[in-house]
Amino acid sequence: MSETNPIPYAESELYRIRHSAAHVMAEAVLALFPEAKIAIGPPIEDGFYYDFDLGQENGKPRTFSEENLAQIEERMKELLKQNAPFEHSSMSIREAQAFFADQPYKLELIADLAAGKLDENGEATAVPASEVSIYKQRDFVDLCRGPHVKFTKQVKANAVKLLRTGGAYWRGNENNPQLQRIYGTAWHNKEELDEYLRLLEEAKARDHRRLGKQLGLFHISQLVGSGLPLWLPKGAVLRETLENFLRQAQLERGYLPVITPHIGKLDLYITSGHYPYYKASQYTPIDVDEEKFMLKPMNCPHHIEIYRSEARSYRDLPLRLAEFGTVYRYEQSGELTGLTRVRGFTVDDSHLFVTPDQLEEEFIGVVDLIQFVFQTMGFHDFRARLGTNDPSSDKYAGAPEMWAKGINAIRQAADKAGMNYTIEEGEAAFYGPKLDFIFRDVLKREWQLGTVQVDFLLPERFDLEYTGEDGQKHRPVMIHRAPFGSMERFVGILIEHFNGAFPLWLAPAQVMMVPIADRHNEYAHAVSRQLRAVGMRVQVDDSSDRMNKKIRNAQLQKIPYMLVVGDKEMENNAVAVRTRDEEDRGALPVAEFISHATTLITTKSMEL
Amino acid sequence: MSETNPIPYAESELYRIRHSAAHVMAEAVLALFPEAKIAIGPPIEDGFYYDFDLGQENGKPRTFSEENLAQIEERMKELLKQNAPFEHSSMSIREAQAFFADQPYKLELIADLAAGKLDENGEATAVPASEVSIYKQRDFVDLCRGPHVKFTKQVKANAVKLLRTGGAYWRGNENNPQLQRIYGTAWHNKEELDEYLRLLEEAKARDHRRLGKQLGLFHISQLVGSGLPLWLPKGAVLRETLENFLRQAQLERGYLPVITPHIGKLDLYITSGHYPYYKASQYTPIDVDEEKFMLKPMNCPHHIEIYRSEARSYRDLPLRLAEFGTVYRYEQSGELTGLTRVRGFTVDDSHLFVTPDQLEEEFIGVVDLIQFVFQTMGFHDFRARLGTNDPSSDKYAGAPEMWAKGINAIRQAADKAGMNYTIEEGEAAFYGPKLDFIFRDVLKREWQLGTVQVDFLLPERFDLEYTGEDGQKHRPVMIHRAPFGSMERFVGILIEHFNGAFPLWLAPAQVMMVPIADRHNEYAHAVSRQLRAVGMRVQVDDSSDRMNKKIRNAQLQKIPYMLVVGDKEMENNAVAVRTRDEEDRGALPVAEFISHATTLITTKSMEL
Repeated sequence: MSETNPIPYAESELYRIRHSAAHVMAEAVLALFPEAKIAIGPPIEDGFYYDFDLGQENGKPRTFSEENLAQIEERMKELLKQNAPFEHSSMSIREAQAFFADQPYKLELIADLAAGKLDENGEATAVPASEVSIYKQRDFVDLCRGPHVKFTKQVKANAVKLLRTGGAYWRGNENNPQLQRIYGTAWHNKEELDEYLRLLEEAKARDHRRLGKQLGLFHISQLVGSGLPLWLPKGAVLRETLENFLRQAQLERGYLPVITPHIGKLDLYITSGHYPYYKASQYTPIDVDEEKFMLKPMNCPHHIEIYRSEARSYRDLPLRLAEFGTVYRYEQSGELTGLTRVRGFTVDDSHLFVTPDQLEEEFIGVVDLIQFVFQTMGFHDFRARLGTNDPSSDKYAGAPEMWAKGINAIRQAADKAGMNYTIEEGEAAFYGPKLDFIFRDVLKREWQLGTVQVDFLLPERFDLEYTGEDGQKHRPVMIHRAPFGSMERFVGILIEHFNGAFPLWLAPAQVMMVPIADRHNEYAHAVSRQLRAVGMRVQVDDSSDRMNKKIRNAQLQKIPYMLVVGDKEMENNAVAVRTRDEEDRGALPVAEFISHATTLITTKSMEL
Repeated sequence: MSETNPIPYAESELYRIRHSAAHVMAEAVLALFPEAKIAIGPPIEDGFYYDFDLGQENGKPRTFSEENLAQIEERMKELLKQNAPFEHSSMSIREAQAFFADQPYKLELIADLAAGKLDENGEATAVPASEVSIYKQRDFVDLCRGPHVKFTKQVKANAVKLLRTGGAYWRGNENNPQLQRIYGTAWHNKEELDEYLRLLEEAKARDHRRLGKQLGLFHISQLVGSGLPLWLPKGAVLRETLENFLRQAQLERGYLPVITPHIGKLDLYITSGHYPYYKASQYTPIDVDEEKFMLKPMNCPHHIEIYRSEARSYRDLPLRLAEFGTVYRYEQSGELTGLTRVRGFTVDDSHLFVTPDQLEEEFIGVVDLIQFVFQTMGFHDFRARLGTNDPSSDKYAGAPEMWAKGINAIRQAADKAGMNYTIEEGEAAFYGPKLDFIFRDVLKREWQLGTVQVDFLLPERFDLEYTGEDGQKHRPVMIHRAPFGSMERFVGILIEHFNGAFPLWLAPAQVMMVPIADRHNEYAHAVSRQLRAVGMRVQVDDSSDRMNKKIRNAQLQKIPYMLVVGDKEMENNAVAVRTRDEEDRGALPVAEFISHATTLITTKSMEL
């Protein structure tokens, strides 16, 4: 099967709808704020924005109020309903300068167009323009290459919503004036808009930073440092459960564990090419005597040194070295977000050293493992992307024939594995092409997770060898891979995807024992010991709270099972089973509950 | 039970024997090399040495040859047999200066004695001497405070052996002349000497650096850095098996796992007092934007930040946070040794936050866990040492009453636990007293492993609190503990203790399948799959080697079981069982072997 590329966003109807909505929004703003200066207003993922300069007020940029936003949205909807055509035409540079004489931002754009720096949509260009492309609806005229819908009515008024307003510097440069940006969203119809707004609300409610605190999963301490999460006991249990699952899957597939230090000599990274290549994302070196050490930004060089620790023969290959290796990379403090954007993270890393003959089979094996991992997690909505080098960029190391070989190997393997994938130029690693797995969560957001990379470069840089059946020295190929990607990021996504209600096998606390009265505490503890003996994670709420409060607390903690025990249960060696979804399953003998729950756990069921 | 202190070495007969042997060795050297200048010659652990200056030869210090060493030993034995008395007397400073006029090192010592810097044994003193203590046998006279045996014959000639010679700077200062040091050993009798020499040979054969390479356990890469071991697959399996064993024991005892980053802000270590206190053993800070970060030298501050991540009540205590936390400390490159002296190591760390009332019970619980761990490892020969502060040193932080409270708590707990321990002043951590567990391996060498420390200081430095039953804020006490100590060091010691032949449950490869001919390979693989299915670690030697070679190779790898399979075994669904000790146990049905081996594994038996 070959790759299937969906219609690019820029060619889709939604793009035209949003682009047109942006123009109509600007039209509405000018109607209400005739003194406003307009900057640019492109479609973006899920919506559009437009930037305005409202002048100064008390020495500060004047802003839109919430009330203004409502007025603008109202006016915009009226304008959309009128069904004016979007008319395309052009002006000479001089005409445009005259027309936009009182719009300084447009004048600046026109100057850039004339100089051949940018086109009307703000994209870089190298062609000086002698005329500019114009779109007009009613009296509103904008520099624009389009495309747009034909009539304003094609943007349904009840499928448009203005979301928020905020400051944005002209051209993203903080030395420029601060403009007022209005974000909006637009869809084919009201149903789509409503669904989107629902998902937005839901995403806010599921924010993993909020849930991470509520559920006691992780904590960021300013004294330890931003972007360096501390895994609290429940988060650590969740992460270790994921790691053990993958460890077992790897063991069954012939992977070998290794453990390597978190620092290495600068020379190591100079040899690998990570330094100075990735210097900007690496921490400054540490001086030790006369030597310089670095926090490791990648595990590959360390694994390569393990490969090199002894002479290898074709009998040793494939050699699959695996490690949950924590790496450290610099990120600007403003970019840091909970678990999903951090300065230190743990890669479920593996490096496979293979003969060229084994490359395809091993690549397929890795793709199979990633698919197995995703299926086990209940991730059915995912796609693959083949990232290739951009031949015009100097970001990529190694000879063109290596790149061709690597890309070809991935295509052949992916085709054999019957996978659908898109090809995206410029998405490769610096040392070789890669296949990324992109997961779409329940909120329809896409996240890049697992990755497989083919590498002919590092084996050359480190002069890796093996003795072939022919007695000669040969060069192995490397495969880099990580199904989860980063444990931190993966868990962050998992929290939001499951809204903190993890499937039973992953839940940090699987059962809360709820004794009805003090006299049931002893029995509750006895049952908890039985459950623990079969490896279940159990808590006992023997506080003085009332039963309903205990159940509510356990539900807030999203604990899958609450086992209520009172006189009747004690008498019958039973438990009254409730789930976090408020389901009351009635009384079950303890042994039966154990059998039911352990089956769900060992099969990694998504049922609860 | 109260502490029992053995006779200090300096008061033992062995000390007198060795001290006397050193004098007789110097006498023998002067008899054979009359021009030699004598420096000092003290007893040391397991023996003695004496330093000599033989003058220059071709512009370099003249050295002792192997032949010289044999001559000296022979002459020494003759002298010992003559049974001369050791006579104690004294000389005035002036007399001593005249007597030792041609012995420049002795003159320097006499000057120091007169100035009150050192005593005759080279120990620091503050008392200027008006006379010096002298020991004399036959014509040999030495500055010496003794003690010695009464007659040379009390040092048995057949219980003395000279071991080696090497360079040593006068007073350990490389700006001073290089002297020639001869190391010897002396014991009560020949049997003790022979046993000691046997253990010396054995220790050489068991060197974990040699075995670590032979068994594929770890590797040190100069490109990664000295003192930063890479755990090869078999070493990683061994280490993870140990970690999982302790994880399980901790889980059963209510410990909670946490995971923390390997760096932290400098402020964190300034707050804890580790910086600048431990500055010399810490790596230089890493700059990130305006902040300074450090590689963590200890896990405690990170765990403390987890404690502080939420408000705690007495209901949350004891809170036992556990992590296999990798820390980095600077060591001089000359000090680095395999796994036992490294720059990065993983502590099986835990910090218990307890109320003052819980301290004793929790301390006993920790001691119990350490004893359980040692017993499981088959470590029966160990002792405990209570390390207290040295009140005359400024190395220790915190108020005297805190120290008294901590020491008292340890004594009470250790007494209740029925432990024997010695008290050693100046062996505490900077923040509190500790109880160390010292293990004596099969070669009778002592290693400090597990440790438990009581800490009133860090809770104060970090202003830790909990709300008591009374609704008031209280300060918790911390217990720091690590049963293994450092995973690297522990495994290094384990390799030497077991001579690489680990008990079955720990062995990285537990079984080697040995098919007799190619036609048995398939059956061998089928059996290996059965064993793997029950969690055993199995390899199959399907190479073209002959059976005996396969068995020899497996024995060199110290794999506990070799399962030989040929026609007869295939027919009977059996395996012919051999152990690494050359024991041939005959044929067993596969199911029976599995049942036998898994029992040994689950009971962590020392039987194989």
